[in-house]
Amino acid sequence: MSYRGAMNARVRSEERRAEIVRAALEVIAERGYRGASLAAVAERVGLTQQGLLHYFPTKDALLVAVLEERDQWDAVPDTRWRVDLLASLVEYNAMRPGIIQTFSALLGESVTEGHPARQYFTERYTQVRASMAAVLRTEYGERLPNGLTPERTAPLLVAVMDGLQYQWLLDPQSVDMPGAFRDFLRLLGEDPHREDPDREDPD
Amino acid sequence: MSYRGAMNARVRSEERRAEIVRAALEVIAERGYRGASLAAVAERVGLTQQGLLHYFPTKDALLVAVLEERDQWDAVPDTRWRVDLLASLVEYNAMRPGIIQTFSALLGESVTEGHPARQYFTERYTQVRASMAAVLRTEYGERLPNGLTPERTAPLLVAVMDGLQYQWLLDPQSVDMPGAFRDFLRLLGEDPHREDPDREDPD
Repeated sequence: MSYRGAMNARVRSEERRAEIVRAALEVIAERGYRGASLAAVAERVGLTQQGLLHYFPTKDALLVAVLEERDQWDAVPDTRWRVDLLASLVEYNAMRPGIIQTFSALLGESVTEGHPARQYFTERYTQVRASMAAVLRTEYGERLPNGLTPERTAPLLVAVMDGLQYQWLLDPQSVDMPGAFRDFLRLLGEDPHREDPDREDPD
Repeated sequence: MSYRGAMNARVRSEERRAEIVRAALEVIAERGYRGASLAAVAERVGLTQQGLLHYFPTKDALLVAVLEERDQWDAVPDTRWRVDLLASLVEYNAMRPGIIQTFSALLGESVTEGHPARQYFTERYTQVRASMAAVLRTEYGERLPNGLTPERTAPLLVAVMDGLQYQWLLDPQSVDMPGAFRDFLRLLGEDPHREDPDREDPD
């Protein structure tokens, strides 16, 4: 094969992998990981199961690629995060229910026995709590206005983001996820007696 | 069959059903609902799959019984709830990781397409948010000390409880779920400059 031919083949192969990963994200959103089959992913991209195995030899290998994909998207260097960007992230998440559904389903499954994503989520949360504590420290110093340290506040921040996602996915009409998250940020840091004039009560 | 014989048979049948539901809770905690098989539940209680179908004709029927079981345990009349009891509920939950694992796995799965528990969780959250708003109103009136209404605070309260459960299930050594939840209650209502002398920083 010529150099150009080899390059083209490699680009096509990478495009194909990316296409398979996107299909896997969809299938996991619909069925969870344990409910997902390689056959369903293969069908979605017009491959035989055997053809799919050429790109990803096992279902777990495909899951690893899915998890890496997410890390790539959401990678923001720790030093670049700010509290107001978190509110923007939640706004952004509200525009991509598919991907939030994939990862909410995976997080739920990850607490079951021997799940292949368990270690990923355990390590991810350790790292995310540390990042969030750093963000809070940059914004507020050693104590937040409410008296808590950044390290004690970080798990609450992460919990609110995750918990709101479930409520919102189940009932997007009733749950204003970005608005609720801004309320939480207000609990953390702002003058408690100042009102947000832009937001209505939900009922 | 004599009256006593019939009564005994009925009691035995109810005990058997309860035993099957307990086994189903375990199997769901281990594998999720989609990953659970009736065969695995049957084996755990020493029945054939055919024998199990006598008690629960479908997998979904067994799921309904599992969800009803939870509603029975956790049923507290709205008028009896108080904010400090919520902290006790989280303490209690920290002593029953198995059941929290079952319901965290089910909640995660419930956001996938056509999941049989989706309606249950959607309705449950509507009801739980309303209950929590009522609890907050009883405690604080129309505005919490931070200025939010009970209705805007309730989704955050529910989100923190759920989100902390995932972090704690994944990493019980690192996440003090009851302590973090008490911190959240402090954010809601107490004098922000008072310190909790009983709690150490997590790191």
